[in-house]
Amino acid sequence: MCGTDSNETSGQAPTNTSHPAQNHNPTSSPYAQMQDYISNVNRYKIIESTLREGEQFANAFFTTENKIQIAKMLDKFGVDYIELTNVCSSPQSFEDCKIICGLGLKTKILTHVRCSMDDAKKAIEAGVDGVDLVIGTSSYLQQYSHGKSIEMITKTAIEVIEYVKSQGVEVRFSSEDSFRSDLVDLLTLYKAVDKAGVHRVGVADTVGGATPRMVYQLISTLRSVVGCDIETHFHDDTGCAVGNAISALEGGATHVDTSVLGIGERNGITSLGALMARMVVSAPEYTKSKYNLTMLKEIEEYVASCVQVNIPFNNPITGATAFTHKAGIHAKAILANPSTYEIIDPALFGLSRYISITSRITGWNAVKSRVIQLGYDISDDHIKTITAKIKQMGDIRPLAIDDTDSIIHAYNVQLREQAAAQAE
Amino acid sequence: MCGTDSNETSGQAPTNTSHPAQNHNPTSSPYAQMQDYISNVNRYKIIESTLREGEQFANAFFTTENKIQIAKMLDKFGVDYIELTNVCSSPQSFEDCKIICGLGLKTKILTHVRCSMDDAKKAIEAGVDGVDLVIGTSSYLQQYSHGKSIEMITKTAIEVIEYVKSQGVEVRFSSEDSFRSDLVDLLTLYKAVDKAGVHRVGVADTVGGATPRMVYQLISTLRSVVGCDIETHFHDDTGCAVGNAISALEGGATHVDTSVLGIGERNGITSLGALMARMVVSAPEYTKSKYNLTMLKEIEEYVASCVQVNIPFNNPITGATAFTHKAGIHAKAILANPSTYEIIDPALFGLSRYISITSRITGWNAVKSRVIQLGYDISDDHIKTITAKIKQMGDIRPLAIDDTDSIIHAYNVQLREQAAAQAE
Repeated sequence: MCGTDSNETSGQAPTNTSHPAQNHNPTSSPYAQMQDYISNVNRYKIIESTLREGEQFANAFFTTENKIQIAKMLDKFGVDYIELTNVCSSPQSFEDCKIICGLGLKTKILTHVRCSMDDAKKAIEAGVDGVDLVIGTSSYLQQYSHGKSIEMITKTAIEVIEYVKSQGVEVRFSSEDSFRSDLVDLLTLYKAVDKAGVHRVGVADTVGGATPRMVYQLISTLRSVVGCDIETHFHDDTGCAVGNAISALEGGATHVDTSVLGIGERNGITSLGALMARMVVSAPEYTKSKYNLTMLKEIEEYVASCVQVNIPFNNPITGATAFTHKAGIHAKAILANPSTYEIIDPALFGLSRYISITSRITGWNAVKSRVIQLGYDISDDHIKTITAKIKQMGDIRPLAIDDTDSIIHAYNVQLREQAAAQAE
Repeated sequence: MCGTDSNETSGQAPTNTSHPAQNHNPTSSPYAQMQDYISNVNRYKIIESTLREGEQFANAFFTTENKIQIAKMLDKFGVDYIELTNVCSSPQSFEDCKIICGLGLKTKILTHVRCSMDDAKKAIEAGVDGVDLVIGTSSYLQQYSHGKSIEMITKTAIEVIEYVKSQGVEVRFSSEDSFRSDLVDLLTLYKAVDKAGVHRVGVADTVGGATPRMVYQLISTLRSVVGCDIETHFHDDTGCAVGNAISALEGGATHVDTSVLGIGERNGITSLGALMARMVVSAPEYTKSKYNLTMLKEIEEYVASCVQVNIPFNNPITGATAFTHKAGIHAKAILANPSTYEIIDPALFGLSRYISITSRITGWNAVKSRVIQLGYDISDDHIKTITAKIKQMGDIRPLAIDDTDSIIHAYNVQLREQAAAQAE
């Protein structure tokens, strides 16, 4: 048989305390990342691509004003780079790039162009801090897209890189569909561009099929071949965009591409918010000191309104229920110590937690916390009776907070009446 | 300067072909998983927990009818187990469990209970095929939740396991918050219950803080300690629930817990659909032959309606734009060969792809495919002019498909009139 507090073990009702998970020394935390000498987990950088990859999201149409607002918010958030759509995509793309370069932001402005002299020249004309060159290196893209051999790609890449550098502009060279490229071709190409003095090489899981272990393997191998920075770009088709990003940093990557809410081609890429959730756990001190985390929700809401989507209910951090605790056993422990069922303190993002008691799976400790919030003085035994009443109603229909509050209120009135009757 | 086809390299306009990525021998695919002797990627099993973990989602209230419908759909989909809420949570939870056990489904029915004799007895009374025992083993949960030592946990666990087995019922023993538990305590406990004949041990990332490499490390270590099956459960607070699941299977785990759309406490766990996206790439033959993939969308839509959420725009596979291609360079290649920018054939899930041409970042090959769909015979040079017109309008405002169709139609009328005038 099961007792009243069927989702909890018995014991003292808990009281609120602070959130010690966030106060841990990161190296002594049981969740601290593995310490590898090649790891860049504690010094990663963000290349924010909402205004490039994000513009490839089916629903995206950013006006000039939208772009300026997004760039300013991301700058204030503290991202290291903002990447813009190819200046050759349309006349307005070129004009918008010039405008954003002229805003005087602290963050560096990049544009993502094909690996050709024409595109690179136009990018420099727009006034960017850096040019992101890209070309497909997989057999699929060599055959069905541009039809160029690795030798041709290497030759063109070096010419363009040398030109961009001669203009005093930062330059990245990225392969596209890197994980379906021939490994030896890829390493040969990256070694050649590294020797030519490229600032970063880019690895892209363009079709979103890589696993975290494949990523670690490729990046740590590449780390031993090139001396320059390594940028990584992960699509989320198979749900691994965040797992792949942390594995890349562990393997020696220096930069991660993100977009707000992950918007991009198909179902998108590593989202800025999800990466922050990951990194505030993996590299708490660095992440908290470098990025303006309390701005996240506002930025996500602005971009969501621009591209007319809802924030996914299951979004890390800002999803509607990301800090809601429901099962009795969870609620009891979180009331005693939030770290029991929270790895992230919602306050870091300017958010707060919520203990739900409006269901049949609630428990008496959670109900007690609500009783105290409401200012009633009711004994634990009576609270257990109230909990049974809530569970009874929760078996019949969905409950709202005013349903459970009514049950508590009615029971409290009944208790007072009984006490008054006894006193007479 | 940039030419008209600014998002594409020049060359022949492509034609549609089949989807060779799905025809590859999985072992020769460049994306095939690493071949480890401990890997269970090609023989994984699913424990579907929408009716347990999913009931802990803030918005969830499942009626008996909802539960029956969800169980029947999951059975038809082919999941190996369905896990139900603790039969001790409420009287109706017990009744519903009895009803679902009586449906005669092929999939095995489990209930998830605290590691106590009372709960186990009630579970068996309900008629389940298996009992999932759980207890918190982290220092946080030992201190703030149940207050039991590892010795007490072990003693109770063995008693309960032996009892359940004596009743001819399958039994799993899981720790909770495994990744913040003391490793030696954990291995000692698992070794003891394995020796006691438990069918599965469970590892749970209850607070969602593990990384894929931590998971691989813990699971592969555990694999060397116990002989029984290993079940894994990943929360998604830091966006790694899918990356962690594939890493667990690579490390020797046998079972993954899922819920439809990932619903569960806070922002939930590994979603069934995202896991299918991952596994149809990592283990295509096994996944396609075992699970009824074309049912996924219907199941997700039913559960979404039960818990009153929208399918996230960025959901793998069923997100609104998961198979939409927009940038000109992507569209051109996907028209020549879908595998260039798709790792998953949408047809496997009964879905289809869409090539968007309604933006400034489109390209002439994508526009040509639409011209052909509309039945017009227009030369490539003229299509490039049409593309420039679309980009011009796409610079000014968001475009709908009838906007671009109107541009194509008007241009075609103009061409015919010119041809007629010349013929006169």
